[in-house]
Amino acid sequence: MTMTKVAILGASGYTGAELVRLIARHPSLQIAALTADRKAGQAMADVFPHLAILDLPPLTTIDEVDWSGVDAVFCALPHATTQKVIAGLPERLKVVDLSADFRLEDPEAYKTWYGHEHAETALQKQVVYGLPEFYRDSIKGARIVANTGCYVATALIPLIPILKAGLADPDWIVIDAKSGASGAGRAAKEANLFTEVSEGFHAYSVAGHRHMGEIDQELSKAAGRPVVASFTPHLLPQNRGILATTYLKGEADTIHAHLAERFADEPFVHVLPYGKVPATRHVRGSNHCLIGVVADRQPGRTIVISVLDNLVKGASGQAIQNMNLMLGLPETTGLEQVPLFP
Amino acid sequence: MTMTKVAILGASGYTGAELVRLIARHPSLQIAALTADRKAGQAMADVFPHLAILDLPPLTTIDEVDWSGVDAVFCALPHATTQKVIAGLPERLKVVDLSADFRLEDPEAYKTWYGHEHAETALQKQVVYGLPEFYRDSIKGARIVANTGCYVATALIPLIPILKAGLADPDWIVIDAKSGASGAGRAAKEANLFTEVSEGFHAYSVAGHRHMGEIDQELSKAAGRPVVASFTPHLLPQNRGILATTYLKGEADTIHAHLAERFADEPFVHVLPYGKVPATRHVRGSNHCLIGVVADRQPGRTIVISVLDNLVKGASGQAIQNMNLMLGLPETTGLEQVPLFP
Amino acid sequence: MTMTKVAILGASGYTGAELVRLIARHPSLQIAALTADRKAGQAMADVFPHLAILDLPPLTTIDEVDWSGVDAVFCALPHATTQKVIAGLPERLKVVDLSADFRLEDPEAYKTWYGHEHAETALQKQVVYGLPEFYRDSIKGARIVANTGCYVATALIPLIPILKAGLADPDWIVIDAKSGASGAGRAAKEANLFTEVSEGFHAYSVAGHRHMGEIDQELSKAAGRPVVASFTPHLLPQNRGILATTYLKGEADTIHAHLAERFADEPFVHVLPYGKVPATRHVRGSNHCLIGVVADRQPGRTIVISVLDNLVKGASGQAIQNMNLMLGLPETTGLEQVPLFP
Amino acid sequence: MTMTKVAILGASGYTGAELVRLIARHPSLQIAALTADRKAGQAMADVFPHLAILDLPPLTTIDEVDWSGVDAVFCALPHATTQKVIAGLPERLKVVDLSADFRLEDPEAYKTWYGHEHAETALQKQVVYGLPEFYRDSIKGARIVANTGCYVATALIPLIPILKAGLADPDWIVIDAKSGASGAGRAAKEANLFTEVSEGFHAYSVAGHRHMGEIDQELSKAAGRPVVASFTPHLLPQNRGILATTYLKGEADTIHAHLAERFADEPFVHVLPYGKVPATRHVRGSNHCLIGVVADRQPGRTIVISVLDNLVKGASGQAIQNMNLMLGLPETTGLEQVPLFP
Repeated sequence: MTMTKVAILGASGYTGAELVRLIARHPSLQIAALTADRKAGQAMADVFPHLAILDLPPLTTIDEVDWSGVDAVFCALPHATTQKVIAGLPERLKVVDLSADFRLEDPEAYKTWYGHEHAETALQKQVVYGLPEFYRDSIKGARIVANTGCYVATALIPLIPILKAGLADPDWIVIDAKSGASGAGRAAKEANLFTEVSEGFHAYSVAGHRHMGEIDQELSKAAGRPVVASFTPHLLPQNRGILATTYLKGEADTIHAHLAERFADEPFVHVLPYGKVPATRHVRGSNHCLIGVVADRQPGRTIVISVLDNLVKGASGQAIQNMNLMLGLPETTGLEQVPLFP
Repeated sequence: MTMTKVAILGASGYTGAELVRLIARHPSLQIAALTADRKAGQAMADVFPHLAILDLPPLTTIDEVDWSGVDAVFCALPHATTQKVIAGLPERLKVVDLSADFRLEDPEAYKTWYGHEHAETALQKQVVYGLPEFYRDSIKGARIVANTGCYVATALIPLIPILKAGLADPDWIVIDAKSGASGAGRAAKEANLFTEVSEGFHAYSVAGHRHMGEIDQELSKAAGRPVVASFTPHLLPQNRGILATTYLKGEADTIHAHLAERFADEPFVHVLPYGKVPATRHVRGSNHCLIGVVADRQPGRTIVISVLDNLVKGASGQAIQNMNLMLGLPETTGLEQVPLFP
Repeated sequence: MTMTKVAILGASGYTGAELVRLIARHPSLQIAALTADRKAGQAMADVFPHLAILDLPPLTTIDEVDWSGVDAVFCALPHATTQKVIAGLPERLKVVDLSADFRLEDPEAYKTWYGHEHAETALQKQVVYGLPEFYRDSIKGARIVANTGCYVATALIPLIPILKAGLADPDWIVIDAKSGASGAGRAAKEANLFTEVSEGFHAYSVAGHRHMGEIDQELSKAAGRPVVASFTPHLLPQNRGILATTYLKGEADTIHAHLAERFADEPFVHVLPYGKVPATRHVRGSNHCLIGVVADRQPGRTIVISVLDNLVKGASGQAIQNMNLMLGLPETTGLEQVPLFP
Repeated sequence: MTMTKVAILGASGYTGAELVRLIARHPSLQIAALTADRKAGQAMADVFPHLAILDLPPLTTIDEVDWSGVDAVFCALPHATTQKVIAGLPERLKVVDLSADFRLEDPEAYKTWYGHEHAETALQKQVVYGLPEFYRDSIKGARIVANTGCYVATALIPLIPILKAGLADPDWIVIDAKSGASGAGRAAKEANLFTEVSEGFHAYSVAGHRHMGEIDQELSKAAGRPVVASFTPHLLPQNRGILATTYLKGEADTIHAHLAERFADEPFVHVLPYGKVPATRHVRGSNHCLIGVVADRQPGRTIVISVLDNLVKGASGQAIQNMNLMLGLPETTGLEQVPLFP
């Protein structure tokens, strides 16, 4: 089989390491370059000792990459940096961008949430939003895909079909979301120390989290009119996993039946039996998303609970799923990991 | 100072141990008896080695207690058992009951949530609901106080004044609550094993948790008409702490100002500056409850976040606060522990 | 490729679930039967929801297994039960036993450590001890293999070559070992509750752990004379991973060079550069064992640190490694999982 | 009662916060000043929200402290900085120093372990080593006390009496120590992130940890001749607690009897019944040290296990214990906290 040679830009973060973990066992992808500007020159095994068992290229700067040996790019760079890097890549390269830089279609929305003008608005127009369960066909033909954010994927996967089918009131959506600490990345910040995260729980960016722009965009498209959902992120004392508890005005049994049918053939989305709810530990390390639907006590109200692993289906796994589509590979290739429990 | 001699019934559970921890340093309470039917004959230090530094009476059965040496009782027994035990106690004893047995004023509501008839409905009528911030005067004169449940206290402390003042729509209340594992008690259950709780998160008893009856009762009293809130409990991979994220239709600044004024003189309830939110780790081991109020993005919607330590302000600390009131002691006596962090 | 049909006896424990996780993606093994006497009739997905994405046979009793459709057996049953079950299996079946029942070659040692006579001493003589790095050739021809215990594998992998080569004093061996909580299994015991394990650490079975019999046996064989090592197990507040810190009288540089050479071609054992030490998180979910060697401050003393995942290389992964050898498959088949971090 | 007014230098670290927690409820100490050079101007409640319930002076620089209102000083500054700060304090102030700067009596040893000359060797000679169970009388008369390190206190408390009494071979001491993450402080380092510490375990500074100089010094004094023990620190995925497993050549029953007698009247050191071992969770948040003694399997060998809370008996609690002695107060004043479990 011909191997597609990929570069991972920003390989020294957790999503970079997770891309390496998954691609190392992917039958059609081969890692040709790994970049990490501040750690250039180091071996990946020095930065991530759990990857020492793999035979990997050394970390380099982006400038040092020999693009002639690269067919596709996973970009796991920080926000804002990304725009220029991707604009500067050879046009023949397929790109999956894991940052938030190209997720918002409207440059005004980008400015609102990120506080500065988007530098590559023309390029933005070519980008396809990377939630494969809803944009599969566009992704197949895309050159650049903006991989959906982790919180966003967790919330949107059940909500898009519900709103599209008009099964819930778009003005009455409360998304209470909880994420493991790996979502905060590997930067050395006091707030993310073990001592500051373990044995405790808190909300953050209440009513102000940047992922909201992305949620607004997709829910509004699904509902066919502007939607502004309540969304509150919380930090869990665990490494991996996001769980979103979503409160809706709508009939639970109808919603359950619709989701079950909608996702019946999706390889990575599973609707549990009516009344059952999932746990983050049931998807750890895998690319699966589980959804539970329960009728609330008040007639006409529904609670939907969705879970995924923020580093896999919420980031690197989904990025590979998108790349598989872009390359014409079976969508599940290299993503068959069974969840790790306990 | 005259010491009040107390018996702790059900001392082998976590709330029992927490009562011992707090009472051991209480200047006016003295532990006269500790019961644990299945562990009778053992030393408390064998059941809870962290208490070995204290000089404590041995565990006995309830039948073995010499009531002549007892002035007051903390009852930390399981649900249903409790009714008969309390009915059988000498009438002169002050009792704080930490179980759910006497919290619901309406025997029909009890039957609905607990699946069987209440056995002591006459006694129920004498019981005062034990949330001191709202029932202080009645508690002072009570013989039996039904200590508020841990989830319930977390949710009610901010919500009662909001509903009383008509500052939020009673038909639009979503309480998303998260609790540490000590709330599940010390019973040996597979679901509570370290391997089943750590590195993961899930909701449970969705739309069916028994604490809802208690929430309904108190919110309805506060609103002056029936209220049925959405309430979803989740299990956190941490020992202590409850956080409730409550979504309301109401003006955030008005709600914040009202709560700040309402709790200004409360020793254990603290409203944070507008827009700030609390973490469970900020109250660990203490009897404090912290409340944050934030305006949601949609005009006219508010997010209220409240935290407490489920074993202290949510159980044993509050029980002592109630007992202090019943005994005419300053309410904060023995409850001045500074939170333990990290 | 012809698939070998396997039965997993005792599939409702953690090692059973881990066997399923690994075998589900093994290209030459196929799960034909899953047994769990007390949970017979249930779906594996009910017992382990993280496995719901797999298409698995239902749990049955051992008696219900149709052996005609089975080629090989993984036995993950409790100690003592196992002896009779294995004795009753059709002789044509290859068996890897994950229990301790057949690990001790000497029936007297078995009696000493387990407190009763071994019931199948004749069968014991046919069994090969299942540490593939040292008994590869015998395992290839074996019908029954006794899979090495998790603590034991962690300690023995570095120690056997050191003692065989006479590089350390056999009378001066201190093994201080620490294990994650999954090593205690899934039985509902108070001592293994989240609240009893998290945020704390302790030693257990000090100077009395049953794995010592196995350590004695193998170290004595390696040294060519009786060896009694110090061995203390401790319980870590984490799910997976064992780390053994071993103190030796011997020259560190010589020991390091010998181990590096001895394991140079082993697919699952890796000796780190001299002076570097491993962490359990670097092998999580994988079949790898990492070894670090450091010179102690006192001349002539050495500290050896070894880590593995107790459920993989310490149990189910190693069992598959043994089975691969017994079936003539490449030893690494189905065991290429990259460690999961964070 | 006259209150002694204390300044806490370096109040923005964990030991600083822990001093505040304990002193806030100490009946004879009053906090007059809190310093934190980089956070000067902030409220302590902004730096440590769990302390918001206390009425505390604002953080200032050390230069801003009005020494006329200060009677005694707790110095919780980083290594090396401390020497000059303490040398510059008014001579009338009693000082307990929690850093390592004055613990080593021999300037050469200091240079060896810390890599540079000690700047205040004259002052060093006036300092008393602050392990109250062994230096109580000297501490009472001291102006400056060097508070023992957390690992060191855990190891030394049982070992000093054993070596003094000649009950173990000084050439055969292996101390395998494990610490919670709060021991690493609050500095924002990648290695201390939640994601890097949780669900894993590793040794660090193997054969090279700076606390060894302190251990050597005290064990040599106890044995009356040079002692070099093996000492390996490990990082536990928990906030608080140190456990040291110490392997000795000596008779366990004699050692146990001697320790039990030696510590019978000590308020904070408790020897468990022969054969029992302690857990770190049994001392969480308290100033207690628990010791267990077990006979190893080899005749004439003993395993001693000691635990304490690194932030209390290993740092701030012990500092207050020392200060109590220096001020002529009962040694246990303000240190009666019962351990917090779970």
